[in-house]
Amino acid sequence: MAKLWQKDNYSINDKIEKFTVGRDPEFDVLLAEYDVLGSMAHTTMLESVGLLEKEELKELLAELKNIYAEIQSGDFEIEEGIEDVHSQVELMLTRKLGEAGKKIHSGRSRNDQVLVDLKLFTRAKLQEVTEAVNHLFELLITLSNTHKDVLLPGYTHLQIAMPSSFGLWFGAYAESLIDDTEMLQTAYRLANKNPLGSGAGYGSSFPLNRTLTTRLLGFDNLHYNVVYAQMSRGKTELFAVTAIAQIASTLSRMAMDICLYNSQNFGFIKLPDEMTTGSSIMPHKKNPDVAELLRGKTNRLKGLPNEIMLVLSNLPSGYHREMQLLKEVLMPAFDEILNCLDITHFMLSNIQVKEGILEDPKYDLLFSVERVNQLVLEGVPFREAYKIIGNEINSDTYAANRDLAHSHEGSIGNLCNDQITAMMDEVQGRFGFEKVKKAIDELLS
Amino acid sequence: MAKLWQKDNYSINDKIEKFTVGRDPEFDVLLAEYDVLGSMAHTTMLESVGLLEKEELKELLAELKNIYAEIQSGDFEIEEGIEDVHSQVELMLTRKLGEAGKKIHSGRSRNDQVLVDLKLFTRAKLQEVTEAVNHLFELLITLSNTHKDVLLPGYTHLQIAMPSSFGLWFGAYAESLIDDTEMLQTAYRLANKNPLGSGAGYGSSFPLNRTLTTRLLGFDNLHYNVVYAQMSRGKTELFAVTAIAQIASTLSRMAMDICLYNSQNFGFIKLPDEMTTGSSIMPHKKNPDVAELLRGKTNRLKGLPNEIMLVLSNLPSGYHREMQLLKEVLMPAFDEILNCLDITHFMLSNIQVKEGILEDPKYDLLFSVERVNQLVLEGVPFREAYKIIGNEINSDTYAANRDLAHSHEGSIGNLCNDQITAMMDEVQGRFGFEKVKKAIDELLS
Amino acid sequence: MAKLWQKDNYSINDKIEKFTVGRDPEFDVLLAEYDVLGSMAHTTMLESVGLLEKEELKELLAELKNIYAEIQSGDFEIEEGIEDVHSQVELMLTRKLGEAGKKIHSGRSRNDQVLVDLKLFTRAKLQEVTEAVNHLFELLITLSNTHKDVLLPGYTHLQIAMPSSFGLWFGAYAESLIDDTEMLQTAYRLANKNPLGSGAGYGSSFPLNRTLTTRLLGFDNLHYNVVYAQMSRGKTELFAVTAIAQIASTLSRMAMDICLYNSQNFGFIKLPDEMTTGSSIMPHKKNPDVAELLRGKTNRLKGLPNEIMLVLSNLPSGYHREMQLLKEVLMPAFDEILNCLDITHFMLSNIQVKEGILEDPKYDLLFSVERVNQLVLEGVPFREAYKIIGNEINSDTYAANRDLAHSHEGSIGNLCNDQITAMMDEVQGRFGFEKVKKAIDELLS
Amino acid sequence: MAKLWQKDNYSINDKIEKFTVGRDPEFDVLLAEYDVLGSMAHTTMLESVGLLEKEELKELLAELKNIYAEIQSGDFEIEEGIEDVHSQVELMLTRKLGEAGKKIHSGRSRNDQVLVDLKLFTRAKLQEVTEAVNHLFELLITLSNTHKDVLLPGYTHLQIAMPSSFGLWFGAYAESLIDDTEMLQTAYRLANKNPLGSGAGYGSSFPLNRTLTTRLLGFDNLHYNVVYAQMSRGKTELFAVTAIAQIASTLSRMAMDICLYNSQNFGFIKLPDEMTTGSSIMPHKKNPDVAELLRGKTNRLKGLPNEIMLVLSNLPSGYHREMQLLKEVLMPAFDEILNCLDITHFMLSNIQVKEGILEDPKYDLLFSVERVNQLVLEGVPFREAYKIIGNEINSDTYAANRDLAHSHEGSIGNLCNDQITAMMDEVQGRFGFEKVKKAIDELLS
Repeated sequence: MAKLWQKDNYSINDKIEKFTVGRDPEFDVLLAEYDVLGSMAHTTMLESVGLLEKEELKELLAELKNIYAEIQSGDFEIEEGIEDVHSQVELMLTRKLGEAGKKIHSGRSRNDQVLVDLKLFTRAKLQEVTEAVNHLFELLITLSNTHKDVLLPGYTHLQIAMPSSFGLWFGAYAESLIDDTEMLQTAYRLANKNPLGSGAGYGSSFPLNRTLTTRLLGFDNLHYNVVYAQMSRGKTELFAVTAIAQIASTLSRMAMDICLYNSQNFGFIKLPDEMTTGSSIMPHKKNPDVAELLRGKTNRLKGLPNEIMLVLSNLPSGYHREMQLLKEVLMPAFDEILNCLDITHFMLSNIQVKEGILEDPKYDLLFSVERVNQLVLEGVPFREAYKIIGNEINSDTYAANRDLAHSHEGSIGNLCNDQITAMMDEVQGRFGFEKVKKAIDELLS
Repeated sequence: MAKLWQKDNYSINDKIEKFTVGRDPEFDVLLAEYDVLGSMAHTTMLESVGLLEKEELKELLAELKNIYAEIQSGDFEIEEGIEDVHSQVELMLTRKLGEAGKKIHSGRSRNDQVLVDLKLFTRAKLQEVTEAVNHLFELLITLSNTHKDVLLPGYTHLQIAMPSSFGLWFGAYAESLIDDTEMLQTAYRLANKNPLGSGAGYGSSFPLNRTLTTRLLGFDNLHYNVVYAQMSRGKTELFAVTAIAQIASTLSRMAMDICLYNSQNFGFIKLPDEMTTGSSIMPHKKNPDVAELLRGKTNRLKGLPNEIMLVLSNLPSGYHREMQLLKEVLMPAFDEILNCLDITHFMLSNIQVKEGILEDPKYDLLFSVERVNQLVLEGVPFREAYKIIGNEINSDTYAANRDLAHSHEGSIGNLCNDQITAMMDEVQGRFGFEKVKKAIDELLS
Repeated sequence: MAKLWQKDNYSINDKIEKFTVGRDPEFDVLLAEYDVLGSMAHTTMLESVGLLEKEELKELLAELKNIYAEIQSGDFEIEEGIEDVHSQVELMLTRKLGEAGKKIHSGRSRNDQVLVDLKLFTRAKLQEVTEAVNHLFELLITLSNTHKDVLLPGYTHLQIAMPSSFGLWFGAYAESLIDDTEMLQTAYRLANKNPLGSGAGYGSSFPLNRTLTTRLLGFDNLHYNVVYAQMSRGKTELFAVTAIAQIASTLSRMAMDICLYNSQNFGFIKLPDEMTTGSSIMPHKKNPDVAELLRGKTNRLKGLPNEIMLVLSNLPSGYHREMQLLKEVLMPAFDEILNCLDITHFMLSNIQVKEGILEDPKYDLLFSVERVNQLVLEGVPFREAYKIIGNEINSDTYAANRDLAHSHEGSIGNLCNDQITAMMDEVQGRFGFEKVKKAIDELLS
Repeated sequence: MAKLWQKDNYSINDKIEKFTVGRDPEFDVLLAEYDVLGSMAHTTMLESVGLLEKEELKELLAELKNIYAEIQSGDFEIEEGIEDVHSQVELMLTRKLGEAGKKIHSGRSRNDQVLVDLKLFTRAKLQEVTEAVNHLFELLITLSNTHKDVLLPGYTHLQIAMPSSFGLWFGAYAESLIDDTEMLQTAYRLANKNPLGSGAGYGSSFPLNRTLTTRLLGFDNLHYNVVYAQMSRGKTELFAVTAIAQIASTLSRMAMDICLYNSQNFGFIKLPDEMTTGSSIMPHKKNPDVAELLRGKTNRLKGLPNEIMLVLSNLPSGYHREMQLLKEVLMPAFDEILNCLDITHFMLSNIQVKEGILEDPKYDLLFSVERVNQLVLEGVPFREAYKIIGNEINSDTYAANRDLAHSHEGSIGNLCNDQITAMMDEVQGRFGFEKVKKAIDELLS
């Protein structure tokens, strides 16, 4: 394989090459469009500081747009024998434009090229995830509103505790996604800083204008310090999978509830038959595999931040080659969480909730606090009312009063889904996706 | 031990009691002041909705302030035989005020009491950490400025790469702390939402005014949905230790650099003798134990998010008793990170940097890119200049040019520490610590 | 604090000392008895190779036995100002015996002293755990035999599947402990190798006889290579907590079953009232906190191997100071798992199982495979019989046949608890605890 | 897709099917040969208990051998529309043999089929790993012997400490692999137990002879209790990846040493040019990517036990569908560790060690203990000799004595590589690979 760094006096051993290249080509292709955007910004900046001729820039930008179009249409590929996406793009430019192509690596290193690619990729993927989270959020709010009057036993310690409702249950997971979105935003902010110009982590003696590339690529700010820009490798991935893990936690917990509530021993919800699977031996089975796999896949995602930390732990500053491996952690994680968000949406769109659950006398004790509160309203101090009802229960004279009048914010009778929606809207609004879109559109125009 | 829920017909087995109480009392004391604040807000609200008399409220608030003062002076303790801090406070009020004390649990559960305590505790501790991070940040910026002209070899792949400087090195860790502070802020936002009124996770039939307690306690917003409020148990702790782990990652990496740079084979920095330790067998040793232990302690902290996830994974919704154990993860983590931030500050305040490192000819090749760039400025396309210098190196005709003229943003010659400081100030400003302080001051006034 | 390595010209800074000493004294005391044993073996060996006089050895051994007795009686302590247990013992000997005391550190480093202490400590603790596991195993087998005829629904996918029994359920956890004991044995084997004589990890120029100390301390073998002996630091702890984590996994899963089976929606088992706790707000509650905390505590233990790996990841070979921190991971882990094994034994000794569960018609479908098998025995190929019964179920003509005749190895009707017990006995027998006991008894005699 | 459990009245939703099938087919193919072996044992047993005719068995075995041959030749595949490998094999048999094919699922469930497949697969893969470990072990011993006289600085705290050697360094990693092999053996023992006959985890009412299938498949023993047999799902994978993670730890640490020793600041070893890679910007670079990627890949492997624990944590007993996902963790882990062992062997076969390192005066202090010991041999008590040399060093009168005469077991002068090799041989001998081979050969004959 020809390398940008190829020397005349030796070439790399095949076995070593196979080991070191690994799965890079497979993942590099996903960076191609961002690599082109990065090169457009870099060359524009090179011209502005006198390191490219105006004419060269014009040709380069035109050709880069061609390559971008090729990528969008799915025709781009890394040729056999070409080491990575950066080399492929440089090669295509050099083939077409000669000298101009050989100039574009001035003031740049593959280290900051892949860094800027990863930032742009991660930023775009985090936007996709954020939008998918919002889509699921909206469904959950709708379900919460639709089923707000359907009661459910509330459990603590897995013991029946107090009355709950499907309105509360769906709504709880909706609200959970808001805080998860905050974590997404923290990851997004880190992905939205410009590392370009950091070179191999120690900058360049060329008079680069990093503020310009920051603006061209729609970044919010730059990683000023070039050593830190390089340190953000690994950290950007870590923040992103941490945010993914957080969404995964919410989905996983909901999936566990679904598996439990779908068990014959609870029987609170039901999946349509065509969303269940059977058994090779037991003819009666209708298993909720989809919810179990959702639980398992999201649980696996929760392990990724730790996986990255095991790789990075105790590495001194400066680039180390295994940072390349983190693409293999990050990239499939985005696919998996998007997949999981999508299937959750689909499953919930089809879920059936059971009505009248609390009419079963086995749930009578759920209403014990209501009885206590009744006494309190009649003037008995709480701690004494508690003892009175406790004695009724022990002596079997307790009778459930099923009238519920919860009215405070966020309770069965007053879900506050509008306020919750407003909270989500506020968080979503803080991302600033439009500013990014505008910059990229301009760069490509 | 007497319990709030004690029944007449049986009492808990001693062995079980010992196992279940565990280390709770030790950690509960740390929540005492927050428990009192929570009770002040709750009782104020109870009176506002007619569940307490005006006179009762007056007495309760006065007595709660007494208890608060007792806690501040270090005199408060959980009496032998009292189950937890909530029971202790209720008991003290009941002893002093009789009936009024027995009323304060109306519309409340220990579950939301401990939740609100944890939120207030976590919020306060995250503020402490944020301030300690900022304190270290300022030192790093100062060191970066002071040593901006002292050069250092820059490494990639642990191989000498390009020139770096102590200005860059100190500044990189400063800038790293900014993004870590963003993560702290996400944790802070989650800690700054009001769960009070969620009861055992299913709300209350009393007409509680949760908006009022939100304001009284200085919370930014409330966890509306009561089921989600309860779900935030565990999640609040997880976000907090995730933020702690992130700061720990930055400190750990710096500690590794220090251990390496302090090794005789690098010799870039030195700790004063009185900050080193010796060996029982080798009389020449001056070991940097402090940096090694900093590395180890911060690495342990990085495992905490995973530890919490192992506890919570696959638990269905609703409170489970082991959530209490998370206090044992969270509380010592705050102490440890504060301890680590403090010792880092102390160690760095005393660190000695070596000058003239790059004069050693073994570092000549660090300047190879400078030579390439020189050719580029003379008109040779980058990729060809690269080959020319590569051949010089192979044929031993290469001579280092030690003149450095890096000028772009964030490079050796232009650290941009002012811009970096402005970035940190912006993030710190977003926390809104003053609003919280104002609310708590008012509550206690 | 006076140090063995104290120099005349400077002393360690107080703040650094506090940070570096940390919780060492607290944990070092637990090593005292093993430190004395190690010193007895080391001095015996020193005399054998001419580095101590016969008379000196006699005095040293006598005094070491005194210290050992002091430790056993609980009177031993590390004096204020003494750095660690090794220094304390050396100091006591020097005070009493003068010159002879100053000689015992020949050919030894604190690094291999603490290593040998840790090996002996870990070996002893692993034996304790192994015995506690066996004790629980025996109870589980007894419970399995006692309740072998009490049927239970068997679940897959949390859906009712086929008939199970308490005989199977208790027995399954018993058999699980056998494989966990294999993991304990692997950890024990690693702990049972002698590192003494490895010095600071690079051996000694004295003609030490490491084979002799191996025999004296009852070790199975020695870590020959001194660099590897030092590398076993961290690894020994990792193997031990890995084994602990494995037992924890088994206990955690059983605890989850108990919480679920104890829920009103299952109602298969019941804890006596005095093993449950109540709620501050819901007068009807009898919560299984003990099982939940068992689940949580064991889940936390499962995180420890990862915690150690985060500390050790990417550290080059050779001792690093943070290895000391691993005592803080290892030592409490032994206490916690022993505590958990003990409470599990206690809880299971008091658990009540419900009879007649399967008589409830909601469990009718559990017997569908029995119907299929009936047809097979009448000559219908399995796959066709499966379809026939499937159609019966769909058309509501299925009727459960509750006669069970499982007879194969390990099935409801033939638990094979004797064979399972024999398997456990075989594993337990392979540890060789007697050989160790004999050696230690001799050393102390 | 047609399913064994397909009902007439509905079929599974496409989207759900895609999500639930996931990557199963890709991994299932790897189980094909083991599935056939399991079916050969199962059918042989069915005939022995009267559930198959002698003639049917003969035909089935002949056809199963055909399928086995097809798998070996690489021609086997799971047809479009067939759910899994088990269904594929059953289908092929039914197509060829009709009725007989439909009978083979008697007394069996896919749950125990996949379990037995996984046991056989894991057992075979663990053998491969064990052999690869042994292969690397032998190389390390050879290198240790070859370079036994080449000295190396020994470090503690990353500070120069005492003399070491390449003999010790290579040998240490060899000996480390012995204890790692013990962990492999524990995993092997768990994989070498027969789950067949456990059905869906609750056994069968057919009079299966599980002892017979245990013997036929060469298993060491059976998982008697059928509920535990099912519980071994997940646990078998966990033990295997735990063993893999342990080998990974050893390789990772060695890789870190190599990266460090290969740095210009150490310069102890060198990789041939053709095993290094260059930089796109720095023409002088020869980076040890192979060692860095080895370090990174092995570090990722260390996270797998935790990943499995996150999936399994808090799942109650009984099969859950996400256990299928663990194949995606286990199977690539085997490939990766084998890959890493192979590249380590290759890299070490080509590594160049530097001679004469310790002649550099910067390593003088490495010999300070030698000076102390000299005084001890002259009669000065150790603790006093230590102080004397300490003062020499402080007053710059210390002179290194470079004569080394280490002679004790495992020291520079007496590596004991023969004893270490004997230890490895003993462990390898305990696996009993021959017994397994004999059984499988017989089954296939």
